[in-house]
Amino acid sequence: MDENLTETFVSAERLYEGKMINLRRDMVLLPNGNQASREVVEHPGAVAVVPVLPDGRLLMVRQFRHPVGRILLEIPAGKLASGENPDECALRELEEETGHLAGKLVRVASIFTAPGFTDEVIHIYLAGDLKKTTVNPDEDEFLAVVAHEPQEIARMILSGDICDAKTIAGFYLLQETR
Amino acid sequence: MDENLTETFVSAERLYEGKMINLRRDMVLLPNGNQASREVVEHPGAVAVVPVLPDGRLLMVRQFRHPVGRILLEIPAGKLASGENPDECALRELEEETGHLAGKLVRVASIFTAPGFTDEVIHIYLAGDLKKTTVNPDEDEFLAVVAHEPQEIARMILSGDICDAKTIAGFYLLQETR
Repeated sequence: MDENLTETFVSAERLYEGKMINLRRDMVLLPNGNQASREVVEHPGAVAVVPVLPDGRLLMVRQFRHPVGRILLEIPAGKLASGENPDECALRELEEETGHLAGKLVRVASIFTAPGFTDEVIHIYLAGDLKKTTVNPDEDEFLAVVAHEPQEIARMILSGDICDAKTIAGFYLLQETR
Repeated sequence: MDENLTETFVSAERLYEGKMINLRRDMVLLPNGNQASREVVEHPGAVAVVPVLPDGRLLMVRQFRHPVGRILLEIPAGKLASGENPDECALRELEEETGHLAGKLVRVASIFTAPGFTDEVIHIYLAGDLKKTTVNPDEDEFLAVVAHEPQEIARMILSGDICDAKTIAGFYLLQETR
């Protein structure tokens, strides 16, 4: 049934090579034989971690997000380094951003954030058996680490105080998988 | 507590004006006084709709997504037209993509898909009292409309067969709010 949905690559024009993202514009052949242009933001992929403390609270980070001009409350996350294994990236980002080592780490999903214009995939992990170590964020990264009860997070999602897609997905996936 | 997180805008360089997105690179002043560059993909914003049929199944669409090179199973969604009210956009996209009018429409969340590099916000709606009309997709849009039981969708999220962030958020928000 799907042959009549697929678009076929025709050509690519590279428009920008950046720090976090690249941009290209592709021409594709549509199922009806016409051509159309498709903008693609290339992203290296990322991980996000739902860290569960022994008392049941979740570690989260408050971080200013320049593209939306606001501080957001999110689960810890970060981009994959070149060639980096997602599991190792998850442990690294969790430690850098929250100062905790995870004794237990399970990948529960890999989600596309905005498949209409970017290839970004975020691998979502649940982390447990947390042990405190040292916070060590990137030099251009400023974070506040906080801990919240699951009921409080559920309330903040419905009130709109939590409005980050990966955080909402990660929180509900935690509820579903335990 | 948040003053030490905020980044301040310094200057912008416009890099690309496109069909669906624009790209700019901003310089910002970090909390520590240093400057850093931030890439921003400008997006007009979008809506996504969780349409609930009288029998409890949800309407979804299968659509080839060129940036990820795959057909994805998603809830109906679409970009805001210039100056368009999100409620009207939700009704329009639902009708265009699935051929259904909604007698009931409730906004349950507005989420940032990837706030690290884009301002895209998706307003998520639940829709009910559906009435069949005519499918009328955009000329470069090829969709297959399907209906799935909630239990089946829950299973497909955990198995990875559903991997679109807005769809996962929308489905769980439906479970939470009814």
